[in-house]
Amino acid sequence: MIDTICAISTPAGMGAIAVIRVSGEDAITIADKIFCNSKKVGNLLISSKSHQARLGYIKNATGELVDEVLAIPFVAPHSFTGENSVEFSCHGSQYIQQQILQLLIENGCRLAYSGEFTQRAFLNGKLDLSQAEAIADLIASTSAASHRMALNQMRGSFSNELMKLRENLLQFVSLIELELDFNEEDVEFANRQELKKQAVNIEETIARLADSFRLGNVLKNGIPVALVGETNVGKSTLLNLLLNEDKAIVSDIHGTTRDVIEDLVNIEGITFRFIDTAGIRNTKDKVEKLGIERTFRKIEQASIVLWLIDCTQFSERIEWLTESIMKRAKGKKVILVFNKTDKIADDEREVLNELFEHIEGERIYISAKKRINTQELQNALIKAAQLPELQTGDVVVSNIRHYEALQKSLDSIRRVITGLESEISNDFVSQDIRECMHYLGEITGEISTDEVLGSIFGKFCIGK
Amino acid sequence: MIDTICAISTPAGMGAIAVIRVSGEDAITIADKIFCNSKKVGNLLISSKSHQARLGYIKNATGELVDEVLAIPFVAPHSFTGENSVEFSCHGSQYIQQQILQLLIENGCRLAYSGEFTQRAFLNGKLDLSQAEAIADLIASTSAASHRMALNQMRGSFSNELMKLRENLLQFVSLIELELDFNEEDVEFANRQELKKQAVNIEETIARLADSFRLGNVLKNGIPVALVGETNVGKSTLLNLLLNEDKAIVSDIHGTTRDVIEDLVNIEGITFRFIDTAGIRNTKDKVEKLGIERTFRKIEQASIVLWLIDCTQFSERIEWLTESIMKRAKGKKVILVFNKTDKIADDEREVLNELFEHIEGERIYISAKKRINTQELQNALIKAAQLPELQTGDVVVSNIRHYEALQKSLDSIRRVITGLESEISNDFVSQDIRECMHYLGEITGEISTDEVLGSIFGKFCIGK
Repeated sequence: MIDTICAISTPAGMGAIAVIRVSGEDAITIADKIFCNSKKVGNLLISSKSHQARLGYIKNATGELVDEVLAIPFVAPHSFTGENSVEFSCHGSQYIQQQILQLLIENGCRLAYSGEFTQRAFLNGKLDLSQAEAIADLIASTSAASHRMALNQMRGSFSNELMKLRENLLQFVSLIELELDFNEEDVEFANRQELKKQAVNIEETIARLADSFRLGNVLKNGIPVALVGETNVGKSTLLNLLLNEDKAIVSDIHGTTRDVIEDLVNIEGITFRFIDTAGIRNTKDKVEKLGIERTFRKIEQASIVLWLIDCTQFSERIEWLTESIMKRAKGKKVILVFNKTDKIADDEREVLNELFEHIEGERIYISAKKRINTQELQNALIKAAQLPELQTGDVVVSNIRHYEALQKSLDSIRRVITGLESEISNDFVSQDIRECMHYLGEITGEISTDEVLGSIFGKFCIGK
Repeated sequence: MIDTICAISTPAGMGAIAVIRVSGEDAITIADKIFCNSKKVGNLLISSKSHQARLGYIKNATGELVDEVLAIPFVAPHSFTGENSVEFSCHGSQYIQQQILQLLIENGCRLAYSGEFTQRAFLNGKLDLSQAEAIADLIASTSAASHRMALNQMRGSFSNELMKLRENLLQFVSLIELELDFNEEDVEFANRQELKKQAVNIEETIARLADSFRLGNVLKNGIPVALVGETNVGKSTLLNLLLNEDKAIVSDIHGTTRDVIEDLVNIEGITFRFIDTAGIRNTKDKVEKLGIERTFRKIEQASIVLWLIDCTQFSERIEWLTESIMKRAKGKKVILVFNKTDKIADDEREVLNELFEHIEGERIYISAKKRINTQELQNALIKAAQLPELQTGDVVVSNIRHYEALQKSLDSIRRVITGLESEISNDFVSQDIRECMHYLGEITGEISTDEVLGSIFGKFCIGK
């Protein structure tokens, strides 16, 4: 922990500027060794006020100029990590970034591990573990909802709820343990009924938080949509259409690449994750049939099923198809999307409607190619998503680690309730309460092991 | 020019942090509209000292939190552009970056065009045109030499040479034009011989600068190396080896992708650009023969020819191959690289040497697969490159626009010399000197048109 660390904190690649971060006790003195201006060499940053940006040069050991940079010293504890820190803004050439890093290393820094800056902020009490994790989510957020969720968590709304829970539990366990101390005298400091009520309250709060994971997971990873249909019904055209509409909006502002969003589609702030399914083919081949079976099974992962039907080509196997799809779509929102509707006559449409009459679900008539009614399809998707509007300050759990800890603490508090009901010894009740507190403490990092920290911060990018 | 502009200045993609730049008269007041801290809303930056970083929040019109950011105001003229500026460091999520840009636009900013920040710096006299162009080169620099070259140019060593030239020319033309004023009296203010000497001095300086372009171009774009050989001799293994060695060095420090460096290989600070050539095949097919002809012609673009030979398989057509390659390799450095040398016996090596005896060029015996002697190959490449060591302050022209302007000014000054020799009227001499000055002025931007500026800054990235 005494090392001074450095890393490039801006995305890899070429850009106008790049930011290099240095943090640790010697951050400012090391930075001063390579930083100078036209008038003075050395001690420029140590003599500066904290947070004051200075224009100057980076020079190497032989006095050769490396770049013109802006340097900002942050004096501990007033920095992100809580340690002395320096941020260099240099020109965004990879060569220059490497040169500066190398100079910092030559002068006593070491390259930071992934997430090490945030880990230090955590270890210095600048934020708790769930807030630190929220930073990673914040950086990865691609929609209004996932962004708001991460921001709420980073700002501590989840941590506050957990703190309150912990306080309640502490008060609770104190009473129980006090009775334990006076065990022989058989005193009762608290009414059993009152205690049980309190435990139920806690259980309800934890259950509510754990339940919010269903929403949190969907907001973070997108609502899973299975796009199914026979081959050549226009699935990829439709998907591209949905993707492109989004891409167009995005690239107005910033050159986003498809690599990042993959087959996530952002519609009015809601992220939909399209599950890739192979087209269903009219086949008797055994191997291919297995593949189709796999497609059908993927429906089970989705919460929305988008069934695309080519109006101009009714499959002979419509019944089998219907049965296969609907068997897996139970409890899911089904949207029947009739494609190429511009190519059929009104009487044909009637036949179509009759054929699918018995299927429950929304019906949309589009032409993916001619972009007819695609807005309605988007509206149908949003309607099917049925997500509650998230407000600033709302607590939603979106991290699987938190969810698992909540589940464990839920088990513990439920054992407390049963224990109180069956009037078992306070010894056991107290132990279960402590266990419940332990699991909640794992979320914020009051209870943590190096292994847990390693697995959390190892997923961060370097420079964060 | 009165618009206040904004852009993301860090590379596209996800990272720990991103920097958003705002510049223009209203930069600080607009930034203040979206920036607040826990105590105060509005007027935080306008009341700050220039260059003082402040931690705070970005909020949107409905008061919803967008991100926690660091904001630095730069008060005109003490900024990169010379205008009022603000830099926001936000979390490196694309969503957040877009949100902040959108908020800035809603509050009166406009998205910057490519290179517009640097263009404003130029228009505000912060740097001249050749210095502005050096910034783009600096960002794109991938080797020690190209970096040093761009940095020298950015810091004004080229501009200083041009300024001195211009002063000399101005003094020169003043004398000529003074004589012109006193034309009827037939006075001679300057000795013709002296004037000619001065013109020759100027010509020599310009010629030296123009000549440096050959080096500058090679340093900037890499030394062209044609890697030729029959199919299956191990060309791609060798190229990957050279690329990987470099990649390994690079990724120790930073996650560089191959996309950026393409088939540029950096060996001890020198960039080599490998020209892709198709493998030469023993064929009688007419179409394929045409393709092979193309490969041979590519040798002409190179300054170094790396001829890879598989020791275990001597082509029957060795003579034809030798003739075809050597015909195009005249005046170029040829390196014969014998691959798979670990697989042959000593007597076979002798046969080999005899076969290629008549060819002038270095011989290297390697195994690309087993990484035998690849260091020697690298040394041979560096030796063949024969580049003079570039020193801090050396002026090397690397921009084709500058080179063309220098060539034109060279033509003009040469006409001046011939004019003085043939004693033509001072009218013409004066005109040629003015023309020479005009072309030199185009380099630094004293003489420039919107079209020229547009084409220069249009090549910059947005945010620079």
